[in-house]
Amino acid sequence: MRAEDDFTRRAGALLRAAANDLKRDDENAERELGLERGSFAEFAAGTRPVTWELMRRAAEVWPLNERDLLPGHDDCPAGVRITRHKESVASGRVLSRGGEPYYEYRDTAMSRIASYRPEWIRMLRVVEDDDPDNPLVQWNRGHLLYQFTYFIGPVNYYYRWNGVSHCVPMDTGDSVWGLPFAPHSFTSRSATEPACILALTYGGSLLGDAQRELAVLGNATTRALAVPLEGAAHRPGAMIRSFMDAGAVTVAELADRTGLTRERAEELAGGAVPPGPEELDLLADALGVSVRDLLAPRTGAADGVSVQFARDARSWVWPDEGAPAYRMTRLAGDPLHPHTSALRVDVLADGAERSAPLTTYQHQYLYVLGAEPVTLSWEFGGRCVEETLAPGDSAYVRPQVPVTFAAAEEGRRAQILLLRISGSVTPEVRYAVGTMAAGGVDRYVAEDRLWYS
Amino acid sequence: MRAEDDFTRRAGALLRAAANDLKRDDENAERELGLERGSFAEFAAGTRPVTWELMRRAAEVWPLNERDLLPGHDDCPAGVRITRHKESVASGRVLSRGGEPYYEYRDTAMSRIASYRPEWIRMLRVVEDDDPDNPLVQWNRGHLLYQFTYFIGPVNYYYRWNGVSHCVPMDTGDSVWGLPFAPHSFTSRSATEPACILALTYGGSLLGDAQRELAVLGNATTRALAVPLEGAAHRPGAMIRSFMDAGAVTVAELADRTGLTRERAEELAGGAVPPGPEELDLLADALGVSVRDLLAPRTGAADGVSVQFARDARSWVWPDEGAPAYRMTRLAGDPLHPHTSALRVDVLADGAERSAPLTTYQHQYLYVLGAEPVTLSWEFGGRCVEETLAPGDSAYVRPQVPVTFAAAEEGRRAQILLLRISGSVTPEVRYAVGTMAAGGVDRYVAEDRLWYS
Repeated sequence: MRAEDDFTRRAGALLRAAANDLKRDDENAERELGLERGSFAEFAAGTRPVTWELMRRAAEVWPLNERDLLPGHDDCPAGVRITRHKESVASGRVLSRGGEPYYEYRDTAMSRIASYRPEWIRMLRVVEDDDPDNPLVQWNRGHLLYQFTYFIGPVNYYYRWNGVSHCVPMDTGDSVWGLPFAPHSFTSRSATEPACILALTYGGSLLGDAQRELAVLGNATTRALAVPLEGAAHRPGAMIRSFMDAGAVTVAELADRTGLTRERAEELAGGAVPPGPEELDLLADALGVSVRDLLAPRTGAADGVSVQFARDARSWVWPDEGAPAYRMTRLAGDPLHPHTSALRVDVLADGAERSAPLTTYQHQYLYVLGAEPVTLSWEFGGRCVEETLAPGDSAYVRPQVPVTFAAAEEGRRAQILLLRISGSVTPEVRYAVGTMAAGGVDRYVAEDRLWYS
Repeated sequence: MRAEDDFTRRAGALLRAAANDLKRDDENAERELGLERGSFAEFAAGTRPVTWELMRRAAEVWPLNERDLLPGHDDCPAGVRITRHKESVASGRVLSRGGEPYYEYRDTAMSRIASYRPEWIRMLRVVEDDDPDNPLVQWNRGHLLYQFTYFIGPVNYYYRWNGVSHCVPMDTGDSVWGLPFAPHSFTSRSATEPACILALTYGGSLLGDAQRELAVLGNATTRALAVPLEGAAHRPGAMIRSFMDAGAVTVAELADRTGLTRERAEELAGGAVPPGPEELDLLADALGVSVRDLLAPRTGAADGVSVQFARDARSWVWPDEGAPAYRMTRLAGDPLHPHTSALRVDVLADGAERSAPLTTYQHQYLYVLGAEPVTLSWEFGGRCVEETLAPGDSAYVRPQVPVTFAAAEEGRRAQILLLRISGSVTPEVRYAVGTMAAGGVDRYVAEDRLWYS
């Protein structure tokens, strides 16, 4: 099926699903949307493309938004989408700061399926010190996206948190993960040696539906919904208090339900003390939630960043010592984003048959580091494909697609950067799909029939 | 600001955010989108409305989707959106099953901000037994939405799970929460007494971005991503295994990182045994995640439903025994949806000044049950508003808006149904907003400037 037809079919399915949710059959839908008799079934089946005018009309007469009727595009029908080095070079553009050239940017592999924005960036500004207040350093204002950065060459990394500026001299193999909206900058420590980064930004859960909802709810509500993790505002009871609000549960009622004393219930709800393991079970039961819902995530970030120097990085072979296909090195990350993983892969295997496939539930971005080419093979939709990737080539890989790397020529040890992120399919969604009634998954993915008959 | 202007402003902010994420300044954006010089800043500022043609063009030349550029509508600028009983009656429509009238449907309060689809439904089919195989019962195919149902009068509730049909005779005050795609039906046990339900369906995390992503990824990938919770497929190690895949962590490496023996690491990764509390800490550390990420949610649902009979329901007074404003009764729910809460509120207070405000982080739907009117007052945007609601009136309330109920006339004890759900602002998003750099929240909600200077 052509990508465009598939988009049309998915748009039709969304229109049907919206009508189903509102309990409108074809006749009701046609009357309310001002459509001719018999046309709704054609729109829903995708044999007639849903138009922008129809979406606008639906958003007027039904309690939904235009975007609720829009599907996503599939620009990766082969399972992997490769961007060649020369395409990246062609996308190159110099960005100035303070009127002077500061960075050269190049796009690398992106897909409409995932929220990656991976850029290769060369530093054009050279400094001779590690002073964060060096006036040659031009800071940005920070951005919404999370950023994983991999360093190549003598790069100075600057970041500012709570008004304090820092400079960390980095070198090849070092990496850092950073929080949104922290101002940062990069410079080179050498006028001759190349100094580059791979700046892999991604939106995580902050983009999409959540951003739309909070943009409507506004700043004051957004601040009220925020749950701080650190500092004086650290409140282990924040989630307990949230669930008590949700269920209109008083301290007395919480004590009754848990069997705890009123004093202890008050203490736990106030967040002054964290609950013990048995209390966690009691509280979860009483509030009708799971223990996981009461626990806060942890973070290893200091001043908004988690740095991983190459010299301290863990490395191991995969899949096992007996037949090692790769040496893996763990790069920067943070428990705040448990579904983001960054790895450097040193390919040990000559030939795909001596290597081993890597599969993950995450979206995957890869970039060929170093000077050696690599053979990439993968399986998707029943087809096996093999491509040779040269240094500077990059690719996007769909979730669950097994990819295998092998030396393109015997003994040439390629090196690959992997950044894996989750998309909108959170663990909650994965569990929810797992509890659907039989046949539910297929209907969820593409509902195009009435909910009855 | 008019709602339409606000939509335009938010659309402009999304266009700016998209360009920022792709590191396009105005000049680059204008060239790539085919816009005249100087116009991009106007679109981004919302002084010139973003057109559908512009969104289509952006989705062609940039790696994004049209929907990524569309904001949501705010149809609740007063904080509360009321639907009067007579409006619901006017929306009434009879739906036939098998060629005969079966249900009368009426819409109640909905908002474009939340995924509620709450219907008042009267049963037109009368049966004389509780036999799930009674041929008078017309089943639907089930639907994607989760459904909370509140019963009024002698209603038979039918549901089917794994091919087995059930009938539960219900009465006023009983309630049930059910999983997606389970076929179900309702009939009346009386030809004279009214038999109605409030069928409050909502999409939860299954709608929106996640559905779009899975529709592109397809059925096979969606099934691979599903994590089953019950039966033979129950795998306490599913998430451990997922995180090992994500980090390319072998059993040997997991053993090294945790200090556990290789045999024990193998056992835990295989999911044969659940980890103990200390092992959970070790595993979370080793995998770079939080303990919460390793724990599965629990469910109290049997055969896809959680039933709460009125006779067994917990009730308590709020905010305290000394000055009770309300008697609360807990209705059906399930730990699988920890952020959904259903309550019946019996209003005890005469006059708003003797009552107390209820506030929650959730979206809130309310319906006036029984025969007594109620005074609803709320505060939003610095304004205090008071409205009298009659039986059959319903309303949508934005998150964090404090609402107070009081008897409209002394001694007239009104009864209200509350269904509270979370939207797209998950705990992950609430924690993420809580970790943003200073000033980040305001920019997140409405970014309309370049990321630098």
